[in-house]
Amino acid sequence: MNEVDSEFFRKSFSEWARLSEEEKRLIVTHSKLVRYKKGQNIHGNKGGCTGALLVKSGSLRIYLLSDEGREITLFRMYEGDVCMLTASCVLTSITFDVFVDAELDSEVYIVCPNALGELMRNNVYVENYALRKTTERFSEVMWTMQQILFMSFDRRLALFLLKELEKTGGDTVRLTQEQIAKYTGSAREVVSRMLKYFAGEKLVEVSRGGVRVLDPAALKAFAGD
Amino acid sequence: MNEVDSEFFRKSFSEWARLSEEEKRLIVTHSKLVRYKKGQNIHGNKGGCTGALLVKSGSLRIYLLSDEGREITLFRMYEGDVCMLTASCVLTSITFDVFVDAELDSEVYIVCPNALGELMRNNVYVENYALRKTTERFSEVMWTMQQILFMSFDRRLALFLLKELEKTGGDTVRLTQEQIAKYTGSAREVVSRMLKYFAGEKLVEVSRGGVRVLDPAALKAFAGD
Repeated sequence: MNEVDSEFFRKSFSEWARLSEEEKRLIVTHSKLVRYKKGQNIHGNKGGCTGALLVKSGSLRIYLLSDEGREITLFRMYEGDVCMLTASCVLTSITFDVFVDAELDSEVYIVCPNALGELMRNNVYVENYALRKTTERFSEVMWTMQQILFMSFDRRLALFLLKELEKTGGDTVRLTQEQIAKYTGSAREVVSRMLKYFAGEKLVEVSRGGVRVLDPAALKAFAGD
Repeated sequence: MNEVDSEFFRKSFSEWARLSEEEKRLIVTHSKLVRYKKGQNIHGNKGGCTGALLVKSGSLRIYLLSDEGREITLFRMYEGDVCMLTASCVLTSITFDVFVDAELDSEVYIVCPNALGELMRNNVYVENYALRKTTERFSEVMWTMQQILFMSFDRRLALFLLKELEKTGGDTVRLTQEQIAKYTGSAREVVSRMLKYFAGEKLVEVSRGGVRVLDPAALKAFAGD
């Protein structure tokens, strides 16, 4: 790992200054930079322990997958974000499995679970950091769950479309209805029906290329935002 | 707080031995034992910070509540269980609100958030403990969420009835359909319809007093357990 990488680690791990030189060396030499293509799976098989993830560039999607293949997006990660849920073998209090895909071409540092485990045993501040990062995800996931469980789907879909546009700019969400269903934890038919309703209300226009938002203000009002 | 109480704290907090005598005194003198009647609310108003909970006796239910009044049970707590989600003012990584009710007449130690915050700032092992307890709840909550989001309701209801009997013994779940709906995060009509279906299958018998399970083995098979 070169100087630039060490610098990126220093900036990304808030507890970096708490590590001894030897511990810094341990973590740096046991991390590898992996490049993933858009759509590629990074973590997922049951029981697997990939290690901690640190995103250098791109975007990752963390989701649950049911036995029937239904997906629920829990959160996304961008540059500088750290994820510990993929290191459940060293965080024994985590007993559930998530899946991680690259949503764009991405570069990800993967910190080897053995090295991480050794650090956590020897330096309580590292364990503290890992647990705190996990608790932050807990809050994020709870937010998502409340949206899914409590909000009616019309409001959720409106919010989703608006959030996508915020991210990509422009006026068109370039996703298939299948993808929208996946990302909102719904079924394609439900998405299709709701988009038809939105189109009827002149909120959106549905085409092969995606969903064009005609009236963002009205959609926003609809989302109750 | 008397000797017996200190002993209960020692047994319940795994990090007790990491505390100095002064810290132990701080926590004990800033905890109060509160008695709640069955059904009474313990924690809930938005923005409120009750403190950490330690159950001395009884049973608590921790749940989410939507704006429309829909409840989703996240987990339950029994003797010796500790909950940090009610101390979100000292655990800044927790940004969501839960509700807590006594499900039975219960005795609960409430640890003052200020004292807890002071301890967490001064003793990294206490912060560690609080975060670890929270992460364990994260896992528990994720399990529940997956049941709700992914399992079809028939299997969920079958599992719920079996679990209740495991807890109470006997062959009858003495809950109203309204209560069952609440505890399974569903609607009364859905519960009613499914129980009718179960009754048709000779799995249960529904009466005013509750739901009698006629064929636990068949219900178990139905739950896919």
